[in-house]
Amino acid sequence: MTNKHVTGNEFNNDELCHQRDHGSYQKDKKKILDGLSRVEGQIRGVHRMVDEERYCVDVLNQIAASRMALARLAMLILEDHTKGCVSNAIVEKDSAESTIEELMDVIKRLL
Amino acid sequence: MTNKHVTGNEFNNDELCHQRDHGSYQKDKKKILDGLSRVEGQIRGVHRMVDEERYCVDVLNQIAASRMALARLAMLILEDHTKGCVSNAIVEKDSAESTIEELMDVIKRLL
Amino acid sequence: MTNKHVTGNEFNNDELCHQRDHGSYQKDKKKILDGLSRVEGQIRGVHRMVDEERYCVDVLNQIAASRMALARLAMLILEDHTKGCVSNAIVEKDSAESTIEELMDVIKRLL
Amino acid sequence: MTNKHVTGNEFNNDELCHQRDHGSYQKDKKKILDGLSRVEGQIRGVHRMVDEERYCVDVLNQIAASRMALARLAMLILEDHTKGCVSNAIVEKDSAESTIEELMDVIKRLL
Repeated sequence: MTNKHVTGNEFNNDELCHQRDHGSYQKDKKKILDGLSRVEGQIRGVHRMVDEERYCVDVLNQIAASRMALARLAMLILEDHTKGCVSNAIVEKDSAESTIEELMDVIKRLL
Repeated sequence: MTNKHVTGNEFNNDELCHQRDHGSYQKDKKKILDGLSRVEGQIRGVHRMVDEERYCVDVLNQIAASRMALARLAMLILEDHTKGCVSNAIVEKDSAESTIEELMDVIKRLL
Repeated sequence: MTNKHVTGNEFNNDELCHQRDHGSYQKDKKKILDGLSRVEGQIRGVHRMVDEERYCVDVLNQIAASRMALARLAMLILEDHTKGCVSNAIVEKDSAESTIEELMDVIKRLL
Repeated sequence: MTNKHVTGNEFNNDELCHQRDHGSYQKDKKKILDGLSRVEGQIRGVHRMVDEERYCVDVLNQIAASRMALARLAMLILEDHTKGCVSNAIVEKDSAESTIEELMDVIKRLL
């Protein structure tokens, strides 16, 4: 990242996003990885419940909880992405339009 | 399950649901377990992507795909549950009202 | 509705659903109509806000509130439908399978 | 809007957003107003269907269609808002952080 980025973007994001080879979620990386490990454990728990033929509604509640946990992680990454990659694209006027359209597409997929 | 159940419920569901110690998804068990293993693999993949600091939108698309896969599995279990446990409760007039209210609660959580 | 229905279904639902010319939400009809009038007023309010070029986020919050109000009304109708039409179909063994599949389809559309 | 805005933001958005007294959806205003009128008509149609006690699933499908139409309108406003108000806040470094957090909040409410 050049100085131009750092001055242009008040979030002082350290990633070069316009090359799409980095993520903007570096500062939340540990939190996101921990959350994903927890969801992975939940899914493994649901697998075990189904294997033991546990009551449907208990299984469904666990699936709903996993989906909510994933939505929360997605919102965190989405916020970091907007403060990082999207903000950089806007400040640098470097494919801001396509970056925002890409953002809208991923929001639609999460809706 | 008594004979009364079998004649009462056209789905010939073999589970005793009103004791909530069984699931109605027996016939789809393999499909659900396979689907859950796939989602578990997807989540592990997302974990790896975040660890490698891959591009945010690629991570978000994978999370959206996992959430959709979980929603599809939930719909399958929900259908089996309605054809099994819920139908049994209605036919036997055994806590049909509370079973339907429980069904509505879990749908709200999935919405 | 014959006596057989009334005894078969503990909800004493008065509608003939299998001909699909009635709704099961009769007892909540006033509540649903009032809710729909309120949503209609909200949408008219959003129309006015957009016409006056009010701040985007205020408009979006109103749209989100309308969508939530519609979801709540849909859940009420869904519950009445399950206690009425779906329960009748299950008790009478009259197209129970297709009625439940239709229920799942409409839930998917609401998700 | 000062010249500084116009040069700073490649979308040439004409609104002053940081005072929150304008919307960024001016160019789509007619499309949004038409869409809202259509949804209002749909809700009135649902009201009539419920009043005539039409079949539950037909009512639910219409409610689902109205919710989807509202989601589409919200996505359009969200995109204009991001290209307008949010981009301006980022370029001017004027409450960019709070503007992005507000954006995340409204997305959560729409999810």
